[in-house]
Amino acid sequence: MEDFLLTKELFTAEERDFQEKVGHFVDEYVIPRISDAWENAKFLEDLIPQIAELGCLGSTLPKEYGCGGEGYVTYGIICQELERGDSSMRSFASVQSSLCMYPIYKFGSEDQKKKLLPGMARGEIIGCFGLTEPDSGSDPSSMRTHVRKVPGGWILNGSKMWITNGPFADIAIVWAKTEEGIRGFIVEKEVKGFQRIEMKNKMSLRSSSTGELIFEDCFLPEENILPNSRGLSSALSCLTQARYGIAWGMVGAAIACYENALQYVHQSKHGEKSLAASQLVQTDLADMLTEIVKTQAFNLQLGRLKEKGKDSFVMASMAKMNACREALDIARKARDLIEYSGTMIDAPAARHMMNIESVFTLEGTDNIHHLTLGRHITGVNAFT
Amino acid sequence: MEDFLLTKELFTAEERDFQEKVGHFVDEYVIPRISDAWENAKFLEDLIPQIAELGCLGSTLPKEYGCGGEGYVTYGIICQELERGDSSMRSFASVQSSLCMYPIYKFGSEDQKKKLLPGMARGEIIGCFGLTEPDSGSDPSSMRTHVRKVPGGWILNGSKMWITNGPFADIAIVWAKTEEGIRGFIVEKEVKGFQRIEMKNKMSLRSSSTGELIFEDCFLPEENILPNSRGLSSALSCLTQARYGIAWGMVGAAIACYENALQYVHQSKHGEKSLAASQLVQTDLADMLTEIVKTQAFNLQLGRLKEKGKDSFVMASMAKMNACREALDIARKARDLIEYSGTMIDAPAARHMMNIESVFTLEGTDNIHHLTLGRHITGVNAFT
Amino acid sequence: MEDFLLTKELFTAEERDFQEKVGHFVDEYVIPRISDAWENAKFLEDLIPQIAELGCLGSTLPKEYGCGGEGYVTYGIICQELERGDSSMRSFASVQSSLCMYPIYKFGSEDQKKKLLPGMARGEIIGCFGLTEPDSGSDPSSMRTHVRKVPGGWILNGSKMWITNGPFADIAIVWAKTEEGIRGFIVEKEVKGFQRIEMKNKMSLRSSSTGELIFEDCFLPEENILPNSRGLSSALSCLTQARYGIAWGMVGAAIACYENALQYVHQSKHGEKSLAASQLVQTDLADMLTEIVKTQAFNLQLGRLKEKGKDSFVMASMAKMNACREALDIARKARDLIEYSGTMIDAPAARHMMNIESVFTLEGTDNIHHLTLGRHITGVNAFT
Amino acid sequence: MEDFLLTKELFTAEERDFQEKVGHFVDEYVIPRISDAWENAKFLEDLIPQIAELGCLGSTLPKEYGCGGEGYVTYGIICQELERGDSSMRSFASVQSSLCMYPIYKFGSEDQKKKLLPGMARGEIIGCFGLTEPDSGSDPSSMRTHVRKVPGGWILNGSKMWITNGPFADIAIVWAKTEEGIRGFIVEKEVKGFQRIEMKNKMSLRSSSTGELIFEDCFLPEENILPNSRGLSSALSCLTQARYGIAWGMVGAAIACYENALQYVHQSKHGEKSLAASQLVQTDLADMLTEIVKTQAFNLQLGRLKEKGKDSFVMASMAKMNACREALDIARKARDLIEYSGTMIDAPAARHMMNIESVFTLEGTDNIHHLTLGRHITGVNAFT
Repeated sequence: MEDFLLTKELFTAEERDFQEKVGHFVDEYVIPRISDAWENAKFLEDLIPQIAELGCLGSTLPKEYGCGGEGYVTYGIICQELERGDSSMRSFASVQSSLCMYPIYKFGSEDQKKKLLPGMARGEIIGCFGLTEPDSGSDPSSMRTHVRKVPGGWILNGSKMWITNGPFADIAIVWAKTEEGIRGFIVEKEVKGFQRIEMKNKMSLRSSSTGELIFEDCFLPEENILPNSRGLSSALSCLTQARYGIAWGMVGAAIACYENALQYVHQSKHGEKSLAASQLVQTDLADMLTEIVKTQAFNLQLGRLKEKGKDSFVMASMAKMNACREALDIARKARDLIEYSGTMIDAPAARHMMNIESVFTLEGTDNIHHLTLGRHITGVNAFT
Repeated sequence: MEDFLLTKELFTAEERDFQEKVGHFVDEYVIPRISDAWENAKFLEDLIPQIAELGCLGSTLPKEYGCGGEGYVTYGIICQELERGDSSMRSFASVQSSLCMYPIYKFGSEDQKKKLLPGMARGEIIGCFGLTEPDSGSDPSSMRTHVRKVPGGWILNGSKMWITNGPFADIAIVWAKTEEGIRGFIVEKEVKGFQRIEMKNKMSLRSSSTGELIFEDCFLPEENILPNSRGLSSALSCLTQARYGIAWGMVGAAIACYENALQYVHQSKHGEKSLAASQLVQTDLADMLTEIVKTQAFNLQLGRLKEKGKDSFVMASMAKMNACREALDIARKARDLIEYSGTMIDAPAARHMMNIESVFTLEGTDNIHHLTLGRHITGVNAFT
Repeated sequence: MEDFLLTKELFTAEERDFQEKVGHFVDEYVIPRISDAWENAKFLEDLIPQIAELGCLGSTLPKEYGCGGEGYVTYGIICQELERGDSSMRSFASVQSSLCMYPIYKFGSEDQKKKLLPGMARGEIIGCFGLTEPDSGSDPSSMRTHVRKVPGGWILNGSKMWITNGPFADIAIVWAKTEEGIRGFIVEKEVKGFQRIEMKNKMSLRSSSTGELIFEDCFLPEENILPNSRGLSSALSCLTQARYGIAWGMVGAAIACYENALQYVHQSKHGEKSLAASQLVQTDLADMLTEIVKTQAFNLQLGRLKEKGKDSFVMASMAKMNACREALDIARKARDLIEYSGTMIDAPAARHMMNIESVFTLEGTDNIHHLTLGRHITGVNAFT
Repeated sequence: MEDFLLTKELFTAEERDFQEKVGHFVDEYVIPRISDAWENAKFLEDLIPQIAELGCLGSTLPKEYGCGGEGYVTYGIICQELERGDSSMRSFASVQSSLCMYPIYKFGSEDQKKKLLPGMARGEIIGCFGLTEPDSGSDPSSMRTHVRKVPGGWILNGSKMWITNGPFADIAIVWAKTEEGIRGFIVEKEVKGFQRIEMKNKMSLRSSSTGELIFEDCFLPEENILPNSRGLSSALSCLTQARYGIAWGMVGAAIACYENALQYVHQSKHGEKSLAASQLVQTDLADMLTEIVKTQAFNLQLGRLKEKGKDSFVMASMAKMNACREALDIARKARDLIEYSGTMIDAPAARHMMNIESVFTLEGTDNIHHLTLGRHITGVNAFT
């Protein structure tokens, strides 16, 4: 779509290259296949090598571990372009990059980094992130999954739910209670007692693979703990990374919806006139464009702050909250504008609208982020 | 749910009976099976005999044609209860009652009435309503389907789209251009050249059966014209009936969403506290309840006016517009309140939310009804 | 304005008469003078005799006390018509009727009733209602005003704020803490130590007279206590009455705004075309009308329940919350539609918009009523 | 208030200086006097020398004409700080800078520039901008004011309305029809037949001086035409400048409202708890902050584009539309949060809320800007 506020002028040449090449991949390989994948509830797993080849996995981590060494704006652009195709693509890359590779890099041992990060960057080792639990809704503090120390390692029991990439991941970064608080562990898929169940009957993110992870007396050797993980805040710091990526991704979804609606209203006629000539239609489009532009301006300013290390988790909360809300609103407007056709999965706006419902909820609901911001503003905790 | 404003006090004993028996049917036979039907995109066709037995088909038409002779509030209650189960149930009954039986009664010959209405009331003859066309979006005035007069009858060509009940209906009430304007015709499923295609990949009303009707040189005998149909306004008068039913139906869907959310927030905890103790959650619930109650009050007042013959098509426009908008908003709030679980088809709120997207669009989009009201208010046509 | 849903059909002949005569008074005597009164911050005190003559004061109380003996729908109609003129008119009558005459009738002695009610119904004795205090915002439970028992009576100390009619009232119904909880007292204007200060620099309800009441060692004789008042709930029961009246009054304000906007868009041209031909304008008008109609349907159903004694304070909360919110939204839309002219006090929509800001806040803010409803729905108190 | 997204990091040192010194002036000289000015409908004319001294008049025009030679971000910052005090301050400076000095600079002769700009920058010559007319609402194309060529000059007839600074300005830039289309003229206050009427009974911008300009056979000498003005587009190019300033100004008003609300909720208690502990209050504050931050990010990106000459009038439309809408919403939320106190003019949020109603309407209504954007997006004109 039109770069209304000339945001690209503020990108580096390398950033523009990323946008072009990831965008091209999405247009050529994701969009033509995504409706069927969605209807049939299948993740387009065979696209992983291309996604890796493009540099979308672990893009901000250092080159010495086989990663991209790119800046945070590049990471944002990757998320935006992938989610323009489908949230399942961005989710896959977000989980791999921000929720698996990032904690390994941040809290892992040098051995863990060397062993895992290069293969993960190449898309040969896939990860998932086990934090949310069946009964805890969006509240990570009421965790039940736990480990017990035993000679040479740990025994893990518990379960995790709503886990993107879970059913086919090679490793899981699992957060569990220990006697010294919550710690992160690497759990390989072959571990005895580790079971994965694919979740069915989803109305959202159907082209993503979502699962439940069940751990029954799983033995984890000593070297599988993330040695520098300390408490829930370590897990939450991964979410801060992921939320930033979601904020950009949501703009991609919103752009797809906007383009879908714009194309439809040009083609569709009411009586003699194109729908595009309706004041009501134009007003919706104007509002959609305005919110896309505003969110882009916000995201870019945050990305540059992250590159300088001046961002905070509260900023990521605002970014995630804002982008999900605006994208959801844009998707709903677009689906409405597309009329009957907007009730079919083939309409990108319909598919995105439903995907965004999940993204709106996961990694902190809208309410949670409002109260996070509210606490920051007032100094008073109103969560409970 | 709680009858907050004691609306039932304003029902007759017979109306209350209808609510109880149709409600019981929905709770027992529809709700337990509807998630699977939705995921698998199957209409629960085997429930038709029960729906007929309950008196849900042609309830307002005279008993002499085997119909119920009930008032319009009863018809509203039927729609509300059926759609509390699923929009597919109400849609089936709406199409059969308001869009097929009603025009046969209103515009048909005595022979047509006697031949068809009793069997339709018993659910043995199923109808569909062919007005909308592939390229016309929500604008019925740009119709292309037409008939040509030939000795002994008519030759029908054209196609209709987004036709509820289309794939399995026994007859279609088809609106087509003639030399003297638009007229209604009865088309039997066996007619040569009449083809039905079920629409796949729906994201909404998946448990409904929606089809495309294609007519290639279909011969219709003279007696298949609805003799008293005159112009587009005849077709539109059926929509007025249907829109009234939708207005009540949407309250049913909203109630299901509200109940789903209320149950969830009582069960779910964040930290020590039930979600039900959150001010943000309570505020959403309060708004949901308020809009349900207001729409009920409005619908009931309109129903009583219809029973006195004092209603107008503009009132039905307002009723449809209002109920769809409020129900959609309630469903979205409910899905959000239900958090992760609200992204699964098993959550009634999720399923209803998606169904309502279709109902919001069909039988006049939100924009169309706003402009219908706007024309009534200002006396100026702003459609084009 | 047009009676879109034929609500008047559901009125009795007497109710219709009230609407006509009070409406005529407003059109003739209030509207021509109200802009100047507003700009100059003067209450139209000289209209009190006419208001009384019309039967607007204490209309629902028994005839034996010189009152009207009318039903609650009549009371609603009075409020609607008065507030169509200006909120100051309805506020005056609400305070006199629901907040002064009602508690005297409900909690007063036979002597108090006989002494005060007939004169109050004739508008010869004016009352005000002292509940809200300077520091308590909208929370009546943190009351500081108190009485001390002394031989032959009580000594009252404290202050009340935001008191409609306060500066010119003859008596005040004052709620104060006693050793046995909160009780109501009649305070005459002549009492030593009782000071009233008119509040200036209001941006809302400027044509109303609002004051602060200050009590310094005021002696109240024994007979000035309302003998049957018991606790805060007695005071709150008056608010339930008043909120019901507000709900109807807000419809009156909304109607005035709607009519103002409708007239303007017919007169105003953009280029060749009347503003009334704009889709955006028509859509706003359609939404305004819809919400007026819905709120009327709701209010009427509640009024009939009140007449049967089947209403509850939660219903009044919903009614007040809903009507204030919708009226505020309608007023804002109207002011916007009226463009530049809508920035002048002469525009009824501008004046009403500002008045409604106060009504939205007083007698329970929007948040308070949401939480009242939320507590009713969930059974959980989330106020604090 | 807190610089949440560290926007100041993106300012130059000089820009930060401007923010500090203009902000200090507003805190010291505007805010303490503004409530009374508003209530009494008086413009704080005596502050003009200080505003000029600070460099707020004609800041972006070249130093050779006695102006500031500053960038557009500086101009934005000036507007933001002045409007944080009151819209009347920003309006005064906007009109002087963007609507009078700018057209003189852009369309004037070298003589006109030299004669007028230095004195205008010093605040010694005050201008107003005459475009809007009594019957034209917000549609400048239906202009009636016209000139007739006569020997040595022109004869001007017509009237202009809603003219900020009009009652006390020394000169007016008046747009009038000529035989070759619309042209701009400089009209001195002393011209015979030129009458100014101050508009009374405003509910908004009361601390601004707004007037009607009436021209009856005013003779304008030849040298008073702006020689390079050509058609309505010249006038509209001034509005593009002004709209950019409004977009920044609205952020200032929003900040004042946010700060007012934040301070109030910390001070006010409901029961035992501070209002700041309410989830509903925190959610409102979070939304307010988010929209302030987003609009700031947008405005800054646009300001930098203007400095590079890469902006367009459509961007200014989006900026004005967005900022007015968000500021209005923030002001309304703030007024509500401040409860009873928010109904008094002393509450900055109340005053700003009413001011913004005007700013929302003037220099293009919300609808007009939506349709401007809609035309840009779709290529179809839907204004009429």
